[in-house]
Amino acid sequence: MADRTSSSPRADAAPTRSWWGWGDPAQALPDAECAALAALVPGAADTALPVPPIASLELPPVRVSAPRTLAHLVSGDPADRAGHTYGKAYRDVVRALNGDLAAAPDLVAFPREERDVVDLLDWAAGADVAVIPYGAGSSVVGGVEYRAGAHAGVLSMDLSGMDRVLETDRVSRAARIQAGTLGPGLEAQLRPHGLTLRHFPQSFEFSTLGGWLATRAGGHYATLHTHIDDLTASLRVVTPAGVSESLRLPGSGAGPSPDRLFLGSEGTLGIITEAWMRLQDRPVHKASASVLFDRFPAAVDAVRAIAQSGLHPANCRLLDPGEAALSGVAAEGTSVLVLGVESAHHPVESRLAELVALARDHGGSPADGSPASGGSAAGAWRSAFLRMPYVRDGLARMSVISETFETACTWDRFPQLYEAVRRDVGAAVREVTGAKALINCRFTHVYPDGPAPYFTVIAPGRRGSEVAMWDEIKAAAIRTLGEQRATVTHHHAVGRDHRPGYDRQRPDLFADVLRAAKRTLDPAGILNPGVLFDTAR
Amino acid sequence: MADRTSSSPRADAAPTRSWWGWGDPAQALPDAECAALAALVPGAADTALPVPPIASLELPPVRVSAPRTLAHLVSGDPADRAGHTYGKAYRDVVRALNGDLAAAPDLVAFPREERDVVDLLDWAAGADVAVIPYGAGSSVVGGVEYRAGAHAGVLSMDLSGMDRVLETDRVSRAARIQAGTLGPGLEAQLRPHGLTLRHFPQSFEFSTLGGWLATRAGGHYATLHTHIDDLTASLRVVTPAGVSESLRLPGSGAGPSPDRLFLGSEGTLGIITEAWMRLQDRPVHKASASVLFDRFPAAVDAVRAIAQSGLHPANCRLLDPGEAALSGVAAEGTSVLVLGVESAHHPVESRLAELVALARDHGGSPADGSPASGGSAAGAWRSAFLRMPYVRDGLARMSVISETFETACTWDRFPQLYEAVRRDVGAAVREVTGAKALINCRFTHVYPDGPAPYFTVIAPGRRGSEVAMWDEIKAAAIRTLGEQRATVTHHHAVGRDHRPGYDRQRPDLFADVLRAAKRTLDPAGILNPGVLFDTAR
Repeated sequence: MADRTSSSPRADAAPTRSWWGWGDPAQALPDAECAALAALVPGAADTALPVPPIASLELPPVRVSAPRTLAHLVSGDPADRAGHTYGKAYRDVVRALNGDLAAAPDLVAFPREERDVVDLLDWAAGADVAVIPYGAGSSVVGGVEYRAGAHAGVLSMDLSGMDRVLETDRVSRAARIQAGTLGPGLEAQLRPHGLTLRHFPQSFEFSTLGGWLATRAGGHYATLHTHIDDLTASLRVVTPAGVSESLRLPGSGAGPSPDRLFLGSEGTLGIITEAWMRLQDRPVHKASASVLFDRFPAAVDAVRAIAQSGLHPANCRLLDPGEAALSGVAAEGTSVLVLGVESAHHPVESRLAELVALARDHGGSPADGSPASGGSAAGAWRSAFLRMPYVRDGLARMSVISETFETACTWDRFPQLYEAVRRDVGAAVREVTGAKALINCRFTHVYPDGPAPYFTVIAPGRRGSEVAMWDEIKAAAIRTLGEQRATVTHHHAVGRDHRPGYDRQRPDLFADVLRAAKRTLDPAGILNPGVLFDTAR
Repeated sequence: MADRTSSSPRADAAPTRSWWGWGDPAQALPDAECAALAALVPGAADTALPVPPIASLELPPVRVSAPRTLAHLVSGDPADRAGHTYGKAYRDVVRALNGDLAAAPDLVAFPREERDVVDLLDWAAGADVAVIPYGAGSSVVGGVEYRAGAHAGVLSMDLSGMDRVLETDRVSRAARIQAGTLGPGLEAQLRPHGLTLRHFPQSFEFSTLGGWLATRAGGHYATLHTHIDDLTASLRVVTPAGVSESLRLPGSGAGPSPDRLFLGSEGTLGIITEAWMRLQDRPVHKASASVLFDRFPAAVDAVRAIAQSGLHPANCRLLDPGEAALSGVAAEGTSVLVLGVESAHHPVESRLAELVALARDHGGSPADGSPASGGSAAGAWRSAFLRMPYVRDGLARMSVISETFETACTWDRFPQLYEAVRRDVGAAVREVTGAKALINCRFTHVYPDGPAPYFTVIAPGRRGSEVAMWDEIKAAAIRTLGEQRATVTHHHAVGRDHRPGYDRQRPDLFADVLRAAKRTLDPAGILNPGVLFDTAR
């Protein structure tokens, strides 16, 4: 069976997906566009790394085989194995482009129903096969890549065949949804009911509900209910020890929340198969405005006042001067605050006016034509936002180092964090690449007690050393966040790449508890080993 | 030391507290008032049970003694032991009135700083002394009463000497607060900073921050951030295995939330010693209105529309016709919805108008003089609300059975739940007491996906059988909630009394995880045994 070349058992309707880079292969940047982009980065390569054909890839031999009763769910096809080797971090893309697929899983499973997940886990636990739960593979933290090296085999468990909304409750505005459902399919199935989850991470098209839940994904809303956690009414999880299902409730104070144990467990404790999610009516009233600031600290103060006002804007995105310049939305040195308000029920203009007034109180100037009722500017921004990962891939093909990292800290710490990142990560980039980094910042989410800043770092790399250079820069970023007592991640998860920061950040006793939970739920230690914590084997 | 009668080591400034009933002994109802109340309940007793003098109580002998280095923190005084035997459930009050104090702890400890908590736990773990964490003893679920029977001794750990706000961060609106701080002291210490926690459970005067955190208390706000959980930025917890402290963050997606493990752990995993809490500016704009409904189902629909509107009223309290009549606020058969809006930042009249319009759309009629700007009506309601536990004690002295239980369910289930509680708990009351129960309902909190209904049950009991009768009625209530798939508690915690419902409600695997967490953090099994789950000894 090592040479299994029959067609994959994945669902026929499954969309084509890039095996090496982001999303839809048809949207990858052509070589000329890659080169044009790289021309903007002094010191970048002038030819694009070629994408190797799948047939040319050297995959390690398949070491295990599924029992006959499960064979129809499992693929050893090279394309499936190559496509499930990595997530979509910069270092993943570069390694794939280099044809480095030593970490490929032996097999990829495509369960169609929960019973399949149970049976596959039963087999894997008995056969010492590590299981990597896989939604759509958009992890940027090494969350779906096996690195442990100690198991008899590795199975990537692709949930994308479990993609249905199973039940809706219109009166409570909730739905029971299978974990493998991708963002667009989820919204398409809710639309006839007039409902929406309104959880729009940047990966929306290429990530699943189960992935969002397992990684505590952050969505569209800038304030209030930012993480998927708060939209979750109950979870159903298959573990090697059995199935856990929580009671669907609007709120409860009965013991510690069982759902909060699995939210963020990143596949180490079980595989989420379905969830009751809290939904919303589709918004019909929308309004947005942009406000310009000469001084970034004044803009930060304005955002803090807004975050503490109780007005809960749907959008509250602050771009620092570098980010604003890169986006082409403002003159040199100007910070831009984009505000958006929406409601399914009542007009929102007066609330937007209150928000703009707060911004003005802190020295902001509403941009021309603002406030506006959304429309084309928001649409253009959304397109650019969804396009960014493809641009990152194009830069990777030009050996340009590109890294985004996001965090959260309290307001009292932010000014110091902002300076430290620019100073210390900038120094690391100079040390590693010899060049000056472009380091920009925006706020993706804001809370009454602090912002979630998102940093973009771009610098020219050396062909052949991209991964090593990226790793050093990433290490500096993680170190700086730890020194500043900011979280190693606000919504990108921990995976394997963020472990150095996470190990320092979380209470040691809590790691002991997670290990104890794992011994209880996954006694054979097969589920996503190395993510979040190490376990003795 | 069994006869230690020296003065208690509790703080001199500690307020006098009723040892048998609610709160301040000076506010207990005089006998005549008890009798007048009971006259409203056909079949009630006509004389009040006397309150036994402490000197007359027969307490079990003290079996253990603290080491010399800790003796100054520990009391074996009968008044301390009697006052720490029970919480404040109906059955607790009746047993205390009957002088039944067989469950009294051997000792009561009054730590003054975290080091004391560590040392006391070290001693207790080595001496097989069970430790019952105790804030101010307002538990109504047997949360502070030792029932396990298997330990060498029992220590009640009273945190009320650790009552300070240690640090404030005005810019992030947060404070680091010791767990033993009572509600009024907490607000008094925040007031000079212009800040407030604004968490006002009914027990506010006689409960502590640590108790709120350990039990996932519900506060003042009817919507949005109802539980203390969402106001918590980080926790510091002393466990027998060491101290766990989480990083203070406005939001994070780094692994499962460590705080959510301790929130609701009810003293079984560790003793919370301090927390960083998210605060708010003190509100200056307030407005409220009452709306009357002829039909309760229409009122429920109105509340659902409001809960799903995104308008987040601070108050949204719906009284069913029985509750409204008892409160004297409406004519027979009328349901009353009380709405309140408040803000520290912007006028709220337009938002109140939107809420009232929604209620009117569903058939509601604004009451005379409504909307109003708060003031006396709200103040009168608040006084009555805080007085209720004293009234309950007065009824207990007249052998009237009085039970309140609260829950939450999704909107689709509420109509059936409401009928089932009135039918099945009503039948149980008739069976047990031979009388027709008064069963009223109000919503204390509402969410987009469902309400938190709070039921009051009043019926005449038989002197000497009050506890047995109450237990049967409580069992019927718990059974009914379970059958209706409603939570056994929304904000009163599980303790020991709610175990039958909790054991049925929570996933079995989650209980296994909690036991594994306990083996990790409390290997000697001394912390609050029997709460939430059983452990092998």
